[in-house]
Order: sequence, then C-alpha cells, then structure tokens
Amino acid sequence: MSLELQCPLPLHNYPTVTMGHGGGGRLSQQLIEGMLRPALSNPALDALHDGARLALGGEQVAFTTDSYVISPLFFPGGDIGALAIHGTINDLAMCGAQPLALAVGLIIEEGLPMETLWRVVQSMQAAAREAGVAVVTGDTKVVERGKGDGIFINTSGIGLIPPGIVLDPRRAAPGDHVLLSGPIANHGIAIMSVREGLAFETALESDSAALHGLVAGLLEAVGTHVHVLRDPTRGGVASALNEIAQAAGVGMSLDEAAIPLDEAVRGACEMLGLDPLYVANEGKCLAIVAPEQSEAALASMRAHPLGQSAAIIGHVNSTNPGRVTLRSRIGGSRVVDMLSGEQLPRIC
Amino acid sequence: MSLELQCPLPLHNYPTVTMGHGGGGRLSQQLIEGMLRPALSNPALDALHDGARLALGGEQVAFTTDSYVISPLFFPGGDIGALAIHGTINDLAMCGAQPLALAVGLIIEEGLPMETLWRVVQSMQAAAREAGVAVVTGDTKVVERGKGDGIFINTSGIGLIPPGIVLDPRRAAPGDHVLLSGPIANHGIAIMSVREGLAFETALESDSAALHGLVAGLLEAVGTHVHVLRDPTRGGVASALNEIAQAAGVGMSLDEAAIPLDEAVRGACEMLGLDPLYVANEGKCLAIVAPEQSEAALASMRAHPLGQSAAIIGHVNSTNPGRVTLRSRIGGSRVVDMLSGEQLPRIC
Repeated sequence: MSLELQCPLPLHNYPTVTMGHGGGGRLSQQLIEGMLRPALSNPALDALHDGARLALGGEQVAFTTDSYVISPLFFPGGDIGALAIHGTINDLAMCGAQPLALAVGLIIEEGLPMETLWRVVQSMQAAAREAGVAVVTGDTKVVERGKGDGIFINTSGIGLIPPGIVLDPRRAAPGDHVLLSGPIANHGIAIMSVREGLAFETALESDSAALHGLVAGLLEAVGTHVHVLRDPTRGGVASALNEIAQAAGVGMSLDEAAIPLDEAVRGACEMLGLDPLYVANEGKCLAIVAPEQSEAALASMRAHPLGQSAAIIGHVNSTNPGRVTLRSRIGGSRVVDMLSGEQLPRIC
Repeated sequence: MSLELQCPLPLHNYPTVTMGHGGGGRLSQQLIEGMLRPALSNPALDALHDGARLALGGEQVAFTTDSYVISPLFFPGGDIGALAIHGTINDLAMCGAQPLALAVGLIIEEGLPMETLWRVVQSMQAAAREAGVAVVTGDTKVVERGKGDGIFINTSGIGLIPPGIVLDPRRAAPGDHVLLSGPIANHGIAIMSVREGLAFETALESDSAALHGLVAGLLEAVGTHVHVLRDPTRGGVASALNEIAQAAGVGMSLDEAAIPLDEAVRGACEMLGLDPLYVANEGKCLAIVAPEQSEAALASMRAHPLGQSAAIIGHVNSTNPGRVTLRSRIGGSRVVDMLSGEQLPRIC
C-alpha cells in the first residue's frame, strides 16, 4: 500500500486544473513545484529545466520529453509535426546536448482526416531529416471523437552532452551577460493572427526551428563559459528569465532597446495588447554567459543562420535577487514579472 | 522544401482515422506499416517492436515511448498513473532492458479535479518506487474542456540491455517453445466490467504490473536462448503472436488447454462474447525460447511472484509461415488471426 501523502499544493485553492496551469507562467510553476516535483522528485529531476542529465556508459546523456497540443495544427511558418521535432531537439540543446534519437507518441482523435495525419507525418520526417536526427520508435493511440482535438504529439529525446559542459540555471552569476539569439514573439503572434483571423501587411511567421547547430557552435566557441541556456517558449522571455533568476537567487537587468523585435511583430503586439516579452518563441535561445566571453559567444551566435540578429540584452546582478527589471526605451525602469495565468493557450 | 511523398497507404480506402486504427490489431498494423514506418523509417525503428536499441558509450540502450489514454482513469487493480509506469517499464523489459529512467508528459483536460490529478500522481510515484525506477523529467500541458478526456499520460523510458542479449521477433525459429508468464485477459475484462457496470461473483482485477524483475531472472537463467519477448497488450496474445509469426516468417501452434486462464475471467469472457486470446494484458509476458532451455526458462518464470502460473503454451513451426493455429480442448484445430479493428477501445 502506498503512503497517502499530503499534497503540498493547497488543493482547496485550486479545486480544478485550469488553462493557466498549462501556460508556462506562475500557475504552471505552482503546479509543478507544489505537486509534481514533490511527488516525483529525485536528484536528476531537480537538475535541469528542460530535461534530465544522466551518466550512462561513461557519457553524460540528456533525456527530455515534451507534448505538443498546438491549435491550429497548421500555421504560418510551421505545423504541429515540425514543431514536435524542433521543440524536443531544442529541449536537448538547452541541456547542452546534441540529439541522438527521438521517440514519438501520437494521440489521434477519431475522425481526423487521414490526409491531415499524412501531412503531419511528412512534416515530422522533413524536420527530422533536416536536423539530422532519427525518430527511432513510436506509439499510436486513438481516442473517440470529442475526447481529443485532431492530434496531440509527444516527442521525447536523448542526446549526448559534451564532456565538461554543465548547464544549470543556478550557475547564473552576478556580472554574467544575457544573450538572446534573435527577435522575439514571432511564434505566438503568428498563431494568434491565424486564430483571430487577422491579416497584417507583412506575413507573420512562426520562428519554429531546431537550435542544436547554433548551440553546438556556441559551446565550441566558449565552452564552459556558457552557464545557462534556455529556450523562451510558453511564458516567453520574461518567464524564462524569472525562473532562472529565482533558481540562482540573482537579479537581472534588461535593456529594452537591445531586445531584437521585428517591426511587424511589434505592431501586431501593440494592436493585440500583448507584451512581446511574454509571447512564446520556438526557435530562440537565451544564454547566460561569463562577461569576458560574451562577445565571443555573440559572434558565434551571429555566425549561425538562426542567430544573425543575436544581441546582448542585459546582465545578471546581485542587487535584486529573484527579480528581473527592464530599462525602457524612454529611460524608466520597471519590474518584469512572471506570466501569471494564461496569455495564449495551446501555443505549443 | 520537403519532397511530397506518395503515402503508401491508400488514403481513399481510409479517409479518416477510426478507433480501430488504435486497437493494436490489423488496422493499427496497416497504419504503422503503411504510413508511419515508411515516413519515419530508419534502421533502429525497424529493429524492435516495443522500442529501439541504440549503441551509446559502449552500452546497448533501449529507448521506448507509450501514451496511456485508458478510460476510466481508475479501475479494479490499478489506474492510469500506475499503468503509465508499468507499461513503459514493460516495453523496456521486452527489449531485454533493465529500466534506467522514465520521462512523463501529462496532457490534462481543463476542469480535471485537482484531487484526481493528485491521486494519479501519487499512484505514479508509488509504482515507480516499487519498481525502483526514477521519473527524471516531465512536461505538463492543459487543453480546453471537451478537447481531451481527463488526463492522457505519455511515458518514455531508457534502459540498459545486458551484453550479448539481442531480442528480435525475427529470431523466432521452428522448434522454439512459446512461453506465457501467467493467466490472460484479466486487464481487459476488469476494464470492461467497470465500463459495463457488470458485477461478477469474483472480483476481476487488472494484472497491471512491472515485469522487469521477471525478465531479469529469465535472462539470467537462460540468456541468449531467449529469442523474443513480447507483452500481449492491445490485441492480446493472438495479435502479438501473429506479429511475431509474420516478422519471422514462421508458424505457431498453440495448445488451448495449456493457456493459463482464470475461471472467473473465462466466465466473464463467455458472458461478454469475448475471446480471451484477443483481450489486453498489462502484466504478462510471452517468451519465444530455444527448446533445449524452455524448461529452465519456465522454472525461472515460475520462481518469480508474477510468473507462478507460467506455462509452455505452444511451439514455433515451419509448416504454416505467418500463421498461428490453436488446437482446441476438444481436439480440433483453428486459425488464430490478428485482431481486425477494435475490440475494447482505450484499454491502455
């Protein structure tokens, strides 16, 4: 018989699961820290954000999993199939790992057109081939009409971490520079524009892409001087940096003018009333790097096709532990909190 | 740009995905062989049924994934949480691997009582602890009410295959004996009885259990003389043995009287009009073993608490390639085909 544990999360405060519990912000964090981690906790689970690091046959191996429930299934710049390959490759990359193999679990709603499934599978194939990673095993389940939503995809992955590389949010240290590999908010705005039926002058496309090549170059260039990597997906740059600041007990100061943002995306965010710092990305990478190597890190990012607009957007400080602040274009300073609740549901 | 491939599965014959495509029988096989495998194919994907085998740092590593969509979430003898741990451990075990680590992806429907989630998570924890395996990483997504069904769980796993062990359905050879670790159909009948609101004199419970201990004992006892392992889940013993017979190009002869079956389950099957050979199991193992070691293999299974009723239920032959036949209790012989379509939807 299992011991009946007391759930650390006060269940009466949240009697049911809400959309916000999946949004990547404060509610997600409460669910994970208040229920899932205490129940399933172990040293490896505590180690990393996007995956676990394991010793295996003398190698350091990263192991990650991610489910993709994005709606709609097809969107400008991508689809759920490519996203389910890119996203898990990126989780591995954020552990410092080069991907070795992927496993795919499909949960299909009865009545999905077979043609749609075929388009999704073809897209997965193309994305995996382009990234040079193999899907080595899979599973298929079907649920009744009205018990799913077209198709959900889970992709897990294993990868190899180069010797000596230890990425951990707790390694963010005062003085470190915060790098961002390119313009933000493209993915979330592309999804939003389809959902809302908005037409913009410029086509807004998701940035869905696999970042393992960019990360390989970065680690080759500055190695152990990279302290933390994170892809700002659900909850955006703001939530990702808040999590790192909390984990390391440090503050962060960002310079708004330095944050890459496409003009068309800026306009769409203003129109929709969205702060781009909270909008999801699927092909961008944050790197916390020792200051003496940050220019070399930046040069390495910019040398990669996916990092041409990379920038140093701020630095780590010791003055405001756990807090991220932003110096605005007009000179003022404000606190950038975590996303609370849900901004754009089912964005990935 | 990706090449537009022609889907090998004639899409006009199956314009939409049906429940049968997830049933583990002929339709599932058509979907996998006709679409998924050709698109995503590679050598590792071809190698094994329940997972892939990879060389990593001098070790042979098994990598598996499985999604659990069982309805109802709680049933006699188990629940979706324990099942999601047992099932993936068993997939690893059927590759000959001892589990190293699990990764869990939750897809939760908005409105799920938090108390239900907590019960599921506690059950996962208890099952993982009992099996001595760690959940090392995870992911949580939430979908809107009416777009999911309470909770779906994907569990992927990695494990270590002992040196020299190569399990492959194609290794089933004429003369080999077919072993079964215990009575069949308990899982499917337990689920069916809850769904249909049936009450039987004897409580019918799922056999949900982790088989890695039984498999470790078996491989220690007879090692490379084990040619194939398979857990007869969706589609039951009949579909599992048909798949092996087809893969190896051999026939199989089963002896009905030798197949372990609990009396209460036999009665329930008769009442419900179900053939126990097609009903799912979640804690049973088929082993194809070289004849000279089959008694030792049987003794090893019977020495394990989960294998006390193990039996030799038939043998591999060369007379009917790809065909499984059953000698019935009354002496006649009949062909045992694969499950076609869906018998018990969402059984795992």
